[in-house]
Amino acid sequence: MNIQEEARKMKLASPRMASTAGEVRNAALLGIAKALEENKTAIFSANAEDLAAADAAGISAAVKKRLKFDEGKLTACLDGLRQLAELPDPVGRVLLRREMDAGLILTKLSCPIGVIGVIFEARPDALVQISSLCIKSGNCAVLKGGKETARTNRALFMLIHAAAVEAGLPKECLLQAELHNEIGELLTCDRDVDLLIPRGSNAFVRYIMDNTKIPVMGHADGICHIYVDKDADQEKALRVIVDAKTQYTAACNAVETVLVDRPIATEFLPKLAKALADAGVELRGSREAAKIVPVAEVMDDDAFAKEYLDLILSAAVVDGPAAAAEHINRFGSHHTDSILTENDVAWEVFRALVDSAGVYRNVSTRFADGFRYGFGAEVGISTSKIHARGPVGLDGLMTYKYLIEGDGQIVGDYASGKAAFHFRDL
Amino acid sequence: MNIQEEARKMKLASPRMASTAGEVRNAALLGIAKALEENKTAIFSANAEDLAAADAAGISAAVKKRLKFDEGKLTACLDGLRQLAELPDPVGRVLLRREMDAGLILTKLSCPIGVIGVIFEARPDALVQISSLCIKSGNCAVLKGGKETARTNRALFMLIHAAAVEAGLPKECLLQAELHNEIGELLTCDRDVDLLIPRGSNAFVRYIMDNTKIPVMGHADGICHIYVDKDADQEKALRVIVDAKTQYTAACNAVETVLVDRPIATEFLPKLAKALADAGVELRGSREAAKIVPVAEVMDDDAFAKEYLDLILSAAVVDGPAAAAEHINRFGSHHTDSILTENDVAWEVFRALVDSAGVYRNVSTRFADGFRYGFGAEVGISTSKIHARGPVGLDGLMTYKYLIEGDGQIVGDYASGKAAFHFRDL
Repeated sequence: MNIQEEARKMKLASPRMASTAGEVRNAALLGIAKALEENKTAIFSANAEDLAAADAAGISAAVKKRLKFDEGKLTACLDGLRQLAELPDPVGRVLLRREMDAGLILTKLSCPIGVIGVIFEARPDALVQISSLCIKSGNCAVLKGGKETARTNRALFMLIHAAAVEAGLPKECLLQAELHNEIGELLTCDRDVDLLIPRGSNAFVRYIMDNTKIPVMGHADGICHIYVDKDADQEKALRVIVDAKTQYTAACNAVETVLVDRPIATEFLPKLAKALADAGVELRGSREAAKIVPVAEVMDDDAFAKEYLDLILSAAVVDGPAAAAEHINRFGSHHTDSILTENDVAWEVFRALVDSAGVYRNVSTRFADGFRYGFGAEVGISTSKIHARGPVGLDGLMTYKYLIEGDGQIVGDYASGKAAFHFRDL
Repeated sequence: MNIQEEARKMKLASPRMASTAGEVRNAALLGIAKALEENKTAIFSANAEDLAAADAAGISAAVKKRLKFDEGKLTACLDGLRQLAELPDPVGRVLLRREMDAGLILTKLSCPIGVIGVIFEARPDALVQISSLCIKSGNCAVLKGGKETARTNRALFMLIHAAAVEAGLPKECLLQAELHNEIGELLTCDRDVDLLIPRGSNAFVRYIMDNTKIPVMGHADGICHIYVDKDADQEKALRVIVDAKTQYTAACNAVETVLVDRPIATEFLPKLAKALADAGVELRGSREAAKIVPVAEVMDDDAFAKEYLDLILSAAVVDGPAAAAEHINRFGSHHTDSILTENDVAWEVFRALVDSAGVYRNVSTRFADGFRYGFGAEVGISTSKIHARGPVGLDGLMTYKYLIEGDGQIVGDYASGKAAFHFRDL
């Protein structure tokens, strides 16, 4: 398969996909649910082959848990598909309607972005979720999943694509890329692919960002901070920090650094070291912090810009919320950062100065997630400030176009003063 | 000046800029207006030097008209500044407020993007307009204007910067780059510059897009089309086409190609050739069109993907609105395209299938402009589908952050079922 040629065809077909009726897209989602349910034996059997190959390759139990596609995950996928079909149509919403002059009407109308490329981890439910979000939003998509679930993905994709076409969507609506070298080809399709969403390791996402002219939505690093203010409730703080580090340590929204306000450093750091040790987490400290508690010293400032993704946490001492924000903006990844304080002024300062997609008070950084925000499914979390930021749901797959309807108006008449705009929102 | 170092300082100062009160930013705008008015003699004198240098370099009268900064342009700038100060604050608007659970509140809050780099044409009023839009929106900005107005820009910038700092904005709010090689340095600042807005020739904008990892907002080509449907009012059509080509031929929203519906081609093309000839425009045609009217033949399809920016127009014959949309999507630049028809169904088909920032009915493509859309000033026109699309005003300089306010909530309790979300928009 030549990805460039296929992407070109997809791009030229994308306006037809964009103009399909909402009912057709919803019928496709329900048809997919039906097809997956009816063919679950074939899907589970393909997944068994993937799991056997993973066993042979000595893949860890934790990863295999993500590869596995069983009744429970199928049910969650079917529920997701049916819920998505119930959601209001994101396409064709009127975002602005304005009379520019009598008989000259401007309309800003939501529409799909067009062609989305998604490169995602080896998780079969991700394939179902991403393709269904693209269908609901009227986008065409090139999908490349992790190779460890190739057989499951192929079985799922064939069913999804057939059901989508059966419901009336253009056959170019979805394309599966299966070969690793096709990622490289996809990166060159900047004329035809409007947006790339890479999911996976920091190194992988950074590689994608560095090697394409296509706009990329996502995040490489997730260096999240918790700042413990002098006016924090320290018992709450320990509980929140342990949750943020251990509830899912490998997640991008797990905390990597705790900043402690100087007036409470001597009191709080030993408590923190104990709570973390009890939870199996190694604490490391800045030179100053390591003098207060007997922990390994973080060697240089750059270490504060490192994502551990492990049961390790750094601590540093700062002077109040503004200094905490400065540390966070300098060493963080603009993902999600939380202040623990009972002091409203400290919160005001922190939320104003921290330049991150998520800025929290008195809660765990692990709340940064589309489902927990009530967005339904998410396509990813963006640390970019362009287009979508933070957890991204259907909204992030939409753009808009401006329509003007008139009756022969020309700009010459407005330039000469023969006609004049009077802008009135309708 | 080391642009990378300055951009780093600006990035670290940008949260302070973002958290300035709206009153301070408005006071800065009014202070700038006052400073420009009080120092107009110095500004006009710097401009006279630029104009003398342009004379010596043999620069054309048309370009010199853009370089000139006189009483009329100053008054327009002052009006713009005062109107901008009157507009509602785009910073800190609540875009969503949701109770995730009792005592757990999610807020989506508008905020500035951060650091914007703008590279713009030699037009002194552009410097005033761009810096004032950045100030109003709470963004820091690196500004690089055309070298032909270097002296005027320097005079304006010093006054603008001094007035902004005097009003209470951080001194890092604005930076002027003056040397051409500083553009190259700016392109490498992807860690610190959040968005680049290049304005100028196709070749220049394309160069910027091809040589930076910073997200770029703007457009290289403006290949706009007018499709004349069989149900068009042909007299209106001629008037609209002549306006779209001649009212400002060098603009990105001027028409380059007219597509004529087959049933009326024999009747309409000769009328079009005459109307264009009367307006001093050369018509060229596809093989089929050139058989109907005696005009030069467009040599190959690629010529339809060319922006003339001159008094030349291509014509081709197509079969109805869907075929017109296909031609437009294939050869156009997704900027602005118009259908001329009295037939509602043809309009429905055209607006659904044309994948452009502006899709018009019965009006000139020249309406694609922030002022004409009622946005006040514009920073540029985007043909990207990511972030802002079409004419971009203050909105395109904003992003948002998500706040969560809680009281010690942890994700572990929601994962274990001890707590549950109930999502209720407030």
